[in-house]
Amino acid sequence: MAKEKGFVTEITPQSEDFSRWYIDVIKKAELMDYSPVRGCIVFRPEGYELWENIQRDLDRRFKETGHRNAYFPLFIPESFFQKEKEHVEGFNPELPWVTEAAGEPLEERLAVRPTSETMFGHMYAKWIQSYRDLPVLINQWANVVRWEKRTLPFLRTSEFLWQEGHTAHETEQEAREETMRMLHVYRDFVQDFLAIPVIMGQKTPSEKFAGAVDTYSIEAMMKDGRAVQAGTSHYLGTNFAVAFDIKFLDRENQLQFTHTTSWGVSTRLIGALIMVHGDDRGLALPPKVAPTQAIMIPIGPPKTRDVVMPRVDELFAQLKQAGVRVRVDDRSDVSPGWKFNEYEMRGVPLRIEIGPRDCENGQAVLVSRISGEKRIVQQANLVEEVERMLEEIHNDMFERAKQFREDNFRSLDTLDEMKAFLEEKRGFVEAGWCGSAACEKTVKEETGATSRNIPFEPTSHKSTCLVCGEKAAHTVAFARAY
Amino acid sequence: MAKEKGFVTEITPQSEDFSRWYIDVIKKAELMDYSPVRGCIVFRPEGYELWENIQRDLDRRFKETGHRNAYFPLFIPESFFQKEKEHVEGFNPELPWVTEAAGEPLEERLAVRPTSETMFGHMYAKWIQSYRDLPVLINQWANVVRWEKRTLPFLRTSEFLWQEGHTAHETEQEAREETMRMLHVYRDFVQDFLAIPVIMGQKTPSEKFAGAVDTYSIEAMMKDGRAVQAGTSHYLGTNFAVAFDIKFLDRENQLQFTHTTSWGVSTRLIGALIMVHGDDRGLALPPKVAPTQAIMIPIGPPKTRDVVMPRVDELFAQLKQAGVRVRVDDRSDVSPGWKFNEYEMRGVPLRIEIGPRDCENGQAVLVSRISGEKRIVQQANLVEEVERMLEEIHNDMFERAKQFREDNFRSLDTLDEMKAFLEEKRGFVEAGWCGSAACEKTVKEETGATSRNIPFEPTSHKSTCLVCGEKAAHTVAFARAY
Repeated sequence: MAKEKGFVTEITPQSEDFSRWYIDVIKKAELMDYSPVRGCIVFRPEGYELWENIQRDLDRRFKETGHRNAYFPLFIPESFFQKEKEHVEGFNPELPWVTEAAGEPLEERLAVRPTSETMFGHMYAKWIQSYRDLPVLINQWANVVRWEKRTLPFLRTSEFLWQEGHTAHETEQEAREETMRMLHVYRDFVQDFLAIPVIMGQKTPSEKFAGAVDTYSIEAMMKDGRAVQAGTSHYLGTNFAVAFDIKFLDRENQLQFTHTTSWGVSTRLIGALIMVHGDDRGLALPPKVAPTQAIMIPIGPPKTRDVVMPRVDELFAQLKQAGVRVRVDDRSDVSPGWKFNEYEMRGVPLRIEIGPRDCENGQAVLVSRISGEKRIVQQANLVEEVERMLEEIHNDMFERAKQFREDNFRSLDTLDEMKAFLEEKRGFVEAGWCGSAACEKTVKEETGATSRNIPFEPTSHKSTCLVCGEKAAHTVAFARAY
Repeated sequence: MAKEKGFVTEITPQSEDFSRWYIDVIKKAELMDYSPVRGCIVFRPEGYELWENIQRDLDRRFKETGHRNAYFPLFIPESFFQKEKEHVEGFNPELPWVTEAAGEPLEERLAVRPTSETMFGHMYAKWIQSYRDLPVLINQWANVVRWEKRTLPFLRTSEFLWQEGHTAHETEQEAREETMRMLHVYRDFVQDFLAIPVIMGQKTPSEKFAGAVDTYSIEAMMKDGRAVQAGTSHYLGTNFAVAFDIKFLDRENQLQFTHTTSWGVSTRLIGALIMVHGDDRGLALPPKVAPTQAIMIPIGPPKTRDVVMPRVDELFAQLKQAGVRVRVDDRSDVSPGWKFNEYEMRGVPLRIEIGPRDCENGQAVLVSRISGEKRIVQQANLVEEVERMLEEIHNDMFERAKQFREDNFRSLDTLDEMKAFLEEKRGFVEAGWCGSAACEKTVKEETGATSRNIPFEPTSHKSTCLVCGEKAAHTVAFARAY
């Protein structure tokens, strides 16, 4: 990798060094930059716009399922963390503390929120009196901080952006339904919008959220075979209700604790979509999340500009009118070839080339970023052709990601098989598990892989534990994870 | 004011106690609640949705003027503040400090950002090399913290939400044009979207932003005659460029410092719109920002429900289809009268009543929240009638606010006149000022009023200073301010 003045000039091939490839791509495409604060990045406009697009679509899905947004304080009093035992044990090692303000020490230290179950719990206890106040369905878009030892842009940063939904319900059943509803919202969103196939399932006890009764996740496979947890949804039982005294008078006039849930996705989705779709030429952005869906590049010698540009402007206006996020690069100081490389590196899903010959024939050339397929289409049908090809590119990306996952996925029976597989290539392993934390730990120590989740739909149901050989309680998906 | 279990049951009249009225209204309408963290509030869904609507419209205006969003770190190293002398003096007294994280003391204390000129400056120095990299036009939506001594929900809270634009330019002229462009964006937005008339002008040196060369503001008058600074735009000169070494090679290949700007509005706009438009019945929300623009209430005895409801549902669908934010309250356990009061208190701009007689006649009744005007309209034209009346309500609200401001505004010549006016009633005073900080201070000490700004278009140009009687350098708008 050659570097000059901090700018990446060449992208390291994935096969040579995947981590280096990742950093090269996100820097060269100007998605982020390192900040002077340990583990915190700057989301540059090209990267932040991915998050804006994710937000817009997810927010719509949250509102369609009856949720409203709110905003709760950044700071959480230390005493709040003490109220839920598992929660404090889980988060204490990662908390940054505000100890002084305006020149004076604080009476009580304030944590910068790593998540907000405690603050929501405190407020819900004030707002909820009766079953008539339930359910409470609130989401928050916010920044959170977890002082991580090892960080990686987007995938694990000390400060990150996310949404956290917090809901309170009359009954366990309703709360469990909500937990699953939001898990499905995440699954649908990640597959339909980001073109990332995921494995939906339940976390094992050792991997569940600190304070949850049950945690569910969707897990995606990166191009290096490692897993990224792309979203989680938690049934919290009455744990936080008891800790924060969230009680209500039920329909029989009895005081009950509410059942609560929480669920979240974060800016790590940006890291996931880069690692799932990118290639040696750079980013490859699924059309629905891409800031620029189509780039129009006029072709041909300077003297033909007068013929080509008016047509380009006209077609640009039509596409924009139709809601396509399209841009024109009509610079004359760089060659079309240079532009082709540039927008491929930036992951723009579709290129539209228009030259003088195309104008004579009333044609345009569409080129897919992902497959390289070239398609000659009629200018008269350009909007429909572009819309169709963008949809095909989305499907193509999803299918390629799914095929890659299948190619790097094994359903195995023993730890030795798993070790052999993971030595040969990285990937996911599905295997039986007896349910003991000891066997789970053995897998981790011997292979570096952790249990990702207990898939709702395993490819096969295993009968014995891959470690101890005893009866399997579950079939588990294992992988090394980010 | 009667209270029960923390719920406000009656609203204190504005004339009795304006501050109490404000708190009663925002609590009863469930816009906010106090949090357990000093000076921080919870933005409840009804309040947060106002901010979402503000964001959506402002964000569009920012993008139309060529800006893109990004996200910069929450934490700012202590050393950054030391680099710009006025900046550190201005903000140091209000900073909260993170001193430990993950169980260990930090090597360098981190401030929780009160504003981000320093962090943007640091990053811009990395990104900007040549005039070809300019201008850089970035905005950020974020939370910021200023540890305020006296707080008031929305108007002055320790943590608040805002946007901060930070731009870098080749020349002073371009940066000054940007500064004014964004001031005008704010003026247009606040007047066109929030129906709040504002006075646009330049801050005096004592009131300008810590680190700015020139600060401009828009100032609004609340119903108690006090001012709220509704938006500010700063020309920062090369102050932050010098402090953070933001240099570029200009067109003559010479190294130059960039000229930078910053500009922001915050959630205090929510406080302003409540205090400008609200009345003794509660909130009054301008239609463009109102979460619910129209509330449909079926009228008449239960037996007529079968006639009325299908028609209500049909009209509701038409309005929703047309993009009106409309809701139906078809509860049968509360009376129409109770609903009228409820939605008036919540500030819904337009009420639509439909009863059996209306259905017979193909009519509906529209009632304005702000004037109480009742209008009988044809159901066949309901969409147009509703859209027209919402627009009229917006104009009505703007005109009322403007009239109120004119009624409580005086162009005066001496401090004695000003004192007499402010004893009689609260309001804004326009007067001549010699330009000395001493005279400005005298005004503040004697009247409690501060210079709000030097209006671009004063009602008259004053020739003498209201304090010392010397030649006036400027005509200034003074007011007590939130």
